Amino acid sequence: MLTSLGYAAKTAESALAPYTFERRDPGAHDVQIEIMYCGVCHSDLHTARNEWHSTVYPVVPGHEIIGRVTRIGSHVKQFKEGQVVGVGCMVDSCQSCASCAEGLEQYCENGFTGTYNAEEKHIGGVTYGGYANNIVVSEKFVLHVSGKLDPAAVAPLLCAGITTYSPLRHWKVGKGHKVGIVGLGGLGHMGVKIAHAMGAHVVLFTTSPGKAADALKLGADEVVISKDAEQMAQHLNSFDFILNTVAAPHDLDAFMVLLKRDGTMTLVGVPELPHPSPSVGNLIFKRRHLAGSLIGGIKETQEMLDFCAEHDITSEIEMIKIQDINIAYERMLKSDVKYRFVIDMASLAA
Amino acid sequence: MLTSLGYAAKTAESALAPYTFERRDPGAHDVQIEIMYCGVCHSDLHTARNEWHSTVYPVVPGHEIIGRVTRIGSHVKQFKEGQVVGVGCMVDSCQSCASCAEGLEQYCENGFTGTYNAEEKHIGGVTYGGYANNIVVSEKFVLHVSGKLDPAAVAPLLCAGITTYSPLRHWKVGKGHKVGIVGLGGLGHMGVKIAHAMGAHVVLFTTSPGKAADALKLGADEVVISKDAEQMAQHLNSFDFILNTVAAPHDLDAFMVLLKRDGTMTLVGVPELPHPSPSVGNLIFKRRHLAGSLIGGIKETQEMLDFCAEHDITSEIEMIKIQDINIAYERMLKSDVKYRFVIDMASLAA
Repeated sequence: MLTSLGYAAKTAESALAPYTFERRDPGAHDVQIEIMYCGVCHSDLHTARNEWHSTVYPVVPGHEIIGRVTRIGSHVKQFKEGQVVGVGCMVDSCQSCASCAEGLEQYCENGFTGTYNAEEKHIGGVTYGGYANNIVVSEKFVLHVSGKLDPAAVAPLLCAGITTYSPLRHWKVGKGHKVGIVGLGGLGHMGVKIAHAMGAHVVLFTTSPGKAADALKLGADEVVISKDAEQMAQHLNSFDFILNTVAAPHDLDAFMVLLKRDGTMTLVGVPELPHPSPSVGNLIFKRRHLAGSLIGGIKETQEMLDFCAEHDITSEIEMIKIQDINIAYERMLKSDVKYRFVIDMASLAA
Repeated sequence: MLTSLGYAAKTAESALAPYTFERRDPGAHDVQIEIMYCGVCHSDLHTARNEWHSTVYPVVPGHEIIGRVTRIGSHVKQFKEGQVVGVGCMVDSCQSCASCAEGLEQYCENGFTGTYNAEEKHIGGVTYGGYANNIVVSEKFVLHVSGKLDPAAVAPLLCAGITTYSPLRHWKVGKGHKVGIVGLGGLGHMGVKIAHAMGAHVVLFTTSPGKAADALKLGADEVVISKDAEQMAQHLNSFDFILNTVAAPHDLDAFMVLLKRDGTMTLVGVPELPHPSPSVGNLIFKRRHLAGSLIGGIKETQEMLDFCAEHDITSEIEMIKIQDINIAYERMLKSDVKYRFVIDMASLAA
């Protein structure tokens, strides 16, 4: 067994603190990675605090992982020691269902294995995530990372990046499209950058006028303050696609009516309490769609990383030490982060 | 001006009663039709009773019209006197917007002209529908009807038929697809027949075990009693498409979870009160869609009528006299009709 040092929450109420645990030794198809950086996703906090009522403690969060390969199994073909690689939200899936066959492991019919707080199918117990010094992952779930980009700022692409890239790609966003991004947080700011790079006319919706300048700098063509009814009315029936990154319950119809006929609004955040029920009339009278999308498959995640390297896209980050993770969680709850915390894992040894 | 005799509601509370009114004389592009049959749609009742809060009284309902051409304008090319023709929910649209250009007049950006209770743009006032002895309609909104089918039973195709055909076509239902139809009423029974003729495996969902035998006779391959959780569970993640014809507020998630990844449930009924808010998780975790669809365009309505003639499809009807329309409304409210009332307009002269 491999000894790992990380940060874990031991109960829903306790702060994250140093924790020593074991991972499996790398098998023939596994890659062992020394973690350099790990992004801080809101899911980490939800899980640490058992807000989804499924946490097994102690939990080591983290699924936006960048690290260096330190050891490979005898059958590993795609990776070498010393390479910088990425690991996202999944570390395994059944590999036999229709979704896995299509490279859509995130929709695995038998349930994918999450990077943390999922069943560890090799040695039992649960999986532990990236708030740690190392990780062991099946080669199939390890991503190649370009040397062109700052690796710390690449880390959030593994969740925030793919969660926005996948729906933008799936709904074929590109040149000539008017695309809305709702919310300028960890996900939204990636959505703006990626939709812009895809060639769309990008409109960022925010409730905070203070974010307008940033949004334009990140690639938005327009910013609409979503609480301003007059501004919203100017965009009625005009959007091909809207990516809604806001998980807090809100009035979906305010955005649905901005879609053209046959337009789609895709949700990527699960609210703790339901949104107000969306109007059926708004769906019927313009044949509009309300949809959802979950992260992305491994093949598409690699495609996204390559796309980001080609377009020089990374996340806007604030680097923190692992010792400051609990403070970072409190700041995240106040949306006091531009736009993603990334843990410098070297701090773990300090 | 042309004098018409019909049945109208004069207030939201009054029963429908004989009413004499005027229509425009047919212009160069108009067709004058002697109405033979008119289907009774739930929208007629909603409008007669001002349940959508937009009724202009007196209102003459009826938008499932079959009749005989009695006079044509000088520029009319497609119709001749004596022909049996149909008129559906629309009698005009702007003919200049993007939707009209695509033959999707039902989504006209400037609002189509409804067959009744809409602005009459030629002579002012409102349009009067098919509970009458005659109607004058622009050639572009008149449909050809095959002589192969019983014209009385064709009438409901003009609304119930196209409302179900259009989404089944738009979402490309066909051989190899598992398709659900929710509700076996005026719309649902047409959905079953049409989806069956399109080659799909059709599952009818109903709350009434008493409707099972009928559903199978109409073309369903399976019937599921939607209140039976065990029966429902057997169909989890298995549908390509579900057409939901139920307008009463109900739990959409009970059906959403039956869709496969990337599946769509399309609503065609507007509830008076909202449905419970659908789960965002059910959308996200299988990339499912919730959508809406409104009747169909004129080109598609003609396609539907031709499809029905080819496949020998008509509505199941109960013929009534116009004098019994108020009783029919009361029975419709109790779902006591298999599956559509059609008024024999000859009764008007009786």
